[in-house]
Amino acid sequence: MSDPFVVVGADAAGLSAASKFRREAPDREVVVFERGQWISYAFCGMPYFIEGRVERMSDLLSLSPSEVDERGIDLRRGHEVVAVDPDAKRVTVETTDGDTLEQPYSDLLVATGGRASTGLFDVRGVDGAFTLHDMDAAAAIDAYIADPNAYDPDRADVSAVDRERVERNAAMPAPETAAVVGGGYVGVETAEALTARGLDVHVFQRSEHLLRPFGEAVGERVETALTEAGVTVHTGSPVEALDGDGRIEAVRFDGERFPVDMAVVGVGIEPNTTLLGGTGVELGEGGAIRTDEYGRTSLSNVYAAGDCATARHAVTGEPAWMPLGLTANRAGRAIGATVAGDPSLVGDIAGTAVVKAFEMEAGRVGLVEVESAREAGFDPVSETVTAGSRSGYYPGAEPTDVTLVADRDTGRLIGGSIVGPDHAAIRINTLATALEADMTVSEVERLDLAYAPPFSPVWDPVLVAAKVLNGTLEEA
Amino acid sequence: MSDPFVVVGADAAGLSAASKFRREAPDREVVVFERGQWISYAFCGMPYFIEGRVERMSDLLSLSPSEVDERGIDLRRGHEVVAVDPDAKRVTVETTDGDTLEQPYSDLLVATGGRASTGLFDVRGVDGAFTLHDMDAAAAIDAYIADPNAYDPDRADVSAVDRERVERNAAMPAPETAAVVGGGYVGVETAEALTARGLDVHVFQRSEHLLRPFGEAVGERVETALTEAGVTVHTGSPVEALDGDGRIEAVRFDGERFPVDMAVVGVGIEPNTTLLGGTGVELGEGGAIRTDEYGRTSLSNVYAAGDCATARHAVTGEPAWMPLGLTANRAGRAIGATVAGDPSLVGDIAGTAVVKAFEMEAGRVGLVEVESAREAGFDPVSETVTAGSRSGYYPGAEPTDVTLVADRDTGRLIGGSIVGPDHAAIRINTLATALEADMTVSEVERLDLAYAPPFSPVWDPVLVAAKVLNGTLEEA
Repeated sequence: MSDPFVVVGADAAGLSAASKFRREAPDREVVVFERGQWISYAFCGMPYFIEGRVERMSDLLSLSPSEVDERGIDLRRGHEVVAVDPDAKRVTVETTDGDTLEQPYSDLLVATGGRASTGLFDVRGVDGAFTLHDMDAAAAIDAYIADPNAYDPDRADVSAVDRERVERNAAMPAPETAAVVGGGYVGVETAEALTARGLDVHVFQRSEHLLRPFGEAVGERVETALTEAGVTVHTGSPVEALDGDGRIEAVRFDGERFPVDMAVVGVGIEPNTTLLGGTGVELGEGGAIRTDEYGRTSLSNVYAAGDCATARHAVTGEPAWMPLGLTANRAGRAIGATVAGDPSLVGDIAGTAVVKAFEMEAGRVGLVEVESAREAGFDPVSETVTAGSRSGYYPGAEPTDVTLVADRDTGRLIGGSIVGPDHAAIRINTLATALEADMTVSEVERLDLAYAPPFSPVWDPVLVAAKVLNGTLEEA
Repeated sequence: MSDPFVVVGADAAGLSAASKFRREAPDREVVVFERGQWISYAFCGMPYFIEGRVERMSDLLSLSPSEVDERGIDLRRGHEVVAVDPDAKRVTVETTDGDTLEQPYSDLLVATGGRASTGLFDVRGVDGAFTLHDMDAAAAIDAYIADPNAYDPDRADVSAVDRERVERNAAMPAPETAAVVGGGYVGVETAEALTARGLDVHVFQRSEHLLRPFGEAVGERVETALTEAGVTVHTGSPVEALDGDGRIEAVRFDGERFPVDMAVVGVGIEPNTTLLGGTGVELGEGGAIRTDEYGRTSLSNVYAAGDCATARHAVTGEPAWMPLGLTANRAGRAIGATVAGDPSLVGDIAGTAVVKAFEMEAGRVGLVEVESAREAGFDPVSETVTAGSRSGYYPGAEPTDVTLVADRDTGRLIGGSIVGPDHAAIRINTLATALEADMTVSEVERLDLAYAPPFSPVWDPVLVAAKVLNGTLEEA
């Protein structure tokens, strides 16, 4: 073994890279350092664990440490990389046992992920207040919600879990009223999960619409869906503080003090980039590590991928920061191949995202908000239509809102969203594909999309929207 | 009113053209001749009417004659166009009353549709034997299945219906065993409908797999779905004859005589082109009227659209004949605009089709069968993968088979299919869009498709298939 490929972080990007590299370069060494105990967990599955729809925490793990070992990857948990010396091509590692070691690298991948933003709020040290960005938090939330006499410790059935924290939360009285601070997709999913657990849930959203990057049409229907399911949505209501001495007692907004006995703060995430502080590495959007089309940073032989890194946006062509699961997996895999000698593009991101809110489904892609499109240098024209999801005579047809955004000068599709209760989310892939192919709205209008009464009307809602937007573009 | 635009046929293509033309050229005359009484009905909805899922025949009508009148379209039912004189720019029309009239045209659209092939079988005059290609047949089948004492005449609640035929069929004893001859999508949908009505259903398919144009992977899973729902599938079993004196008694295949008291023959459709016989019009694939990218035939000022016309295939670039609903609507609409002075492309066809078989869903696009790809001049490479429809830990995840076909030389995606019980059909639109954008499999592999546990795993089944096929292409 020689020419070590060193990976920092054992989640989606890091382990995808290590696994692909191991297969393609069996003669080189690959070492993965993970500062904590958790590896390869499904961040996006945590709300469904809290909801109870996923029974065991272990269901959310893709790979166990022993499976990683079996792949021939040298995985070292409890090892925090604290410094990178790009000239000496060496990292400094501190172990939870207090040891320090130096590890040389031929190639380095920084896959340190992100962390929950807390904004103004300090949730640490306040019982009943949480962010939701790691498995220990998910386990603690689940335990906190449960009736102290009915908590099932087998729910958090992974040895890596912070057992002491779980037990402390399980022992607290079950909450009745929860504030979800932030109406992004984590907030919406958490609201659904807590409602399913019987809590009276209040979502507080700073701006006028939930799910802002999905656009107004989605925000409105998702708000209706939440409201109909019993959630109280407070839009235009920035929470100013969490009150509580020991345990959470209230949230403050608009000068009001709203009593709660639980709060989950989901106001976004921030990239973990401090490891490269002082190396002079170039940062980009959102403070994330700037990377090129192969995932290379501005430092020689240093790559970055996942929630800590930028990626090229399919519409703007500029580096963007959109921390999502597929981006991390895909970039990690490509970097693993590139480092092994098979140069592979990490792929553009289109900002494709989907979310479920009770029975409502929504998807978005590209530049949906007119302001963001304008900032990117486009002259956006947008139309929203409501069309049926199936033939009108076929049971299950549901109104589906499609928003399409095009550039006036070129007629190119630059963004879109879809919302409705019947197969709406998965339809966004049609727009994502059209967008990445640089299609014009006229080309979208002529797509030969599927038609059969149980699945779509003759004119798929996407085609209806393209017809209407194209009409507007032709008039202009 | 002058410069008349004359349309032959008042279904999807004809009425789409007339409606678009009326809006764009309000000063010109538009006359639509329909030889029968039915207009604007949903052919694809008929199996669901027979099934009982659609309650009333009138639910399947998009437009009533009075609504067409209100649009300012001169609709004449019971008027059969029997001859076209392209030099004189005039058609000859015979009415059901026995009158003959001459109608001059500035532009003519032939939208005469298709008719059910019956192959070797003569279903006329045999009670209990049907083809399924018009509303009168659907009404008759529905009446034939019903118990004579329980038939509800309000089911066929449209004045155009052949009431005498309905009543005659309603009076016959209810059948118990049905043969569905032909395992294409009409056959599969009919099998489901008849099963739902309590019949013992046998599907006879000439080739080794159901749904041949969908490829083997789809055929196998749909066969399993039918079988599990109680349908008996006889593949490799060409039916040689329908036996019966007065009423159907049996089907003959493989030297066997299989007793049935109902038979539905769905062995394909044929384009109705006899109207243009003798005009010297150029025909194309399947004997359909050859058209160009604006729907123009080889005759001056004569257009054709819908089930009687060819359209350009998105993959081969050659004229193809694939009679489907969206193709007809889209071409009609474009021709209406073109004739009105706004030249509009009818759009390519990708052969996108979807079908439901009980809980199973399938879609196909482009060149799926290796032989057809070879005939079109490609060197096809194909892979089929099975992947989950959602994150494995999320309830409802189901195995989904994706087949992708690429051209070896260029790596271009030329076809694909998707089958599975969870959101499989609508996923085909991703492939249809990629195909029409001339994407390579590498480009498909890098698509930023949606990920959220309730809707898709991190790697959508389409991406998994692209990864595998791309690996095969790279090895080659």
